[in-house]
Amino acid sequence: MQNNAHAMDRLFEAVEEKGPVCLGLDTDISYIPENFAARFSTISEKLLSFNKAIIDATLDIAAAYKPQIAYYEACGLEGLRAFAQTLEYIRKKGAIAVSDVKRGDIAKTAGMYARAHFTGDFETDIITVNPYMGMDTLEPFFPYLRKGKGLFALIATSNKGAPDIEGIKTESGEKVYQLAGRMIQRAGSAFIGERGYSAIGGVVGCTDVQETKFIRQALPGVFFLIPGYGAQGGAAEDIGAYFSGGNGGIVNSSRGILLARKKPEFSGLNFDEAARAETLRMREELRCHIK
Amino acid sequence: MQNNAHAMDRLFEAVEEKGPVCLGLDTDISYIPENFAARFSTISEKLLSFNKAIIDATLDIAAAYKPQIAYYEACGLEGLRAFAQTLEYIRKKGAIAVSDVKRGDIAKTAGMYARAHFTGDFETDIITVNPYMGMDTLEPFFPYLRKGKGLFALIATSNKGAPDIEGIKTESGEKVYQLAGRMIQRAGSAFIGERGYSAIGGVVGCTDVQETKFIRQALPGVFFLIPGYGAQGGAAEDIGAYFSGGNGGIVNSSRGILLARKKPEFSGLNFDEAARAETLRMREELRCHIK
Repeated sequence: MQNNAHAMDRLFEAVEEKGPVCLGLDTDISYIPENFAARFSTISEKLLSFNKAIIDATLDIAAAYKPQIAYYEACGLEGLRAFAQTLEYIRKKGAIAVSDVKRGDIAKTAGMYARAHFTGDFETDIITVNPYMGMDTLEPFFPYLRKGKGLFALIATSNKGAPDIEGIKTESGEKVYQLAGRMIQRAGSAFIGERGYSAIGGVVGCTDVQETKFIRQALPGVFFLIPGYGAQGGAAEDIGAYFSGGNGGIVNSSRGILLARKKPEFSGLNFDEAARAETLRMREELRCHIK
Repeated sequence: MQNNAHAMDRLFEAVEEKGPVCLGLDTDISYIPENFAARFSTISEKLLSFNKAIIDATLDIAAAYKPQIAYYEACGLEGLRAFAQTLEYIRKKGAIAVSDVKRGDIAKTAGMYARAHFTGDFETDIITVNPYMGMDTLEPFFPYLRKGKGLFALIATSNKGAPDIEGIKTESGEKVYQLAGRMIQRAGSAFIGERGYSAIGGVVGCTDVQETKFIRQALPGVFFLIPGYGAQGGAAEDIGAYFSGGNGGIVNSSRGILLARKKPEFSGLNFDEAARAETLRMREELRCHIK
């Protein structure tokens, strides 16, 4: 499955087959049950083994896996070894890996990031990028998009500081995130796959349903990565409006799944069984709101 | 020197003592002379040994060293080992390390980045951050600012895509980067050191001299990291306007120094001798334009 097919075609097909859940591997070492962690001696082994168990339990019901690099970086070189091995495992299993790294830099530096995450130890399928410095920061990634790699560029997030910059109205009356969305769509129009989506997708948070509808209509062809479900408070009703014909987006949950064993309804289950149960529950809830 | 003193006080004093050159350790493996590289067997050793030689040759004339993590990430785990060891070496020598990582993420993730770069394997003095997602992304770093750590937040860059978002005029007539600058200054006002500068500095590119003067006047108390000198075409004349009383900023050069041996005027010098000669030349040129 480590093929050269268009990244968003593969993601589209994964959503058709497995549903729209993106499983966020924001694996804080404190999330790992003590009795499980005790079986391994290094931090790297603990993180990797936990991730493998989660992946094995959800392979048929998760569209993609999204390790957030910050959690691994926080454990230093040992942590990054687990990050690399987790990516290798996801891809070996034929699943799609989205590395949440939110890189954004210019020219040669961006080229180095492309090399870092699309080849070698940290090879992944799709990475998240930050467009603040401008659209030229995306260009060094373009040659890789033609070889089956993809990007999710930050457009709109739903954290409390999002109005500071993303939400500011420009002179022309649109908000900064709308402008960013348009520019990302334009850049992506050269990379449309067979399913109608560009290899350059966008990160769009759970906002109110009106704004969500606006974003979906304004940005056809942009596949969405939607964070903020569950632990961060995003609601399935609002998320539904980001989808078109039941596809075109993946919805991320991290803590909600990794720590599902702590929910009363899953008590008695192992962490991986609880993760599967929560992924199934989330998928059903989303399907009720996605037309 | 791995002390808890205010990060920008230390940087201010380094500029007073050594001048305003920030030496960018954007060490592409291809920059290392073959006969030098041949003495070491691993990529990690090659990168680290090259960096050490550059650092040893410039310790008394560089205010800070700024490794750009992308170059190390591009070499995978081996590269990141060299990144960690380079930071350790810089700090062991009593110099100031600025990790150019441009991280920007929310809440718990930002806290993980803070842990990653202000403690453990990748411990540094100052990191660069990206404010696109809003000012709440800076908050998890605040506890570390009280322990001598610092930030440089992206404000204005001078790449060709900078007008796309940073340069857009908002409804109120200011540009996005001016708004970001004001918000960064406001956030930083709680972290002013004895020398009058906040532990939250800003990244400001080489733009035209009028804009530069405006930025300096609008943002008193914000220490500047000024990239783009030399290889990227920034001119010393324009940079001068960013300084106030001869301090308040550092000017980065990477390739110009790391590859100084290729300049005709330094032919015959070893790479580290040429790096020293170029750092001295740059410092003199800057001093002519900084009042």
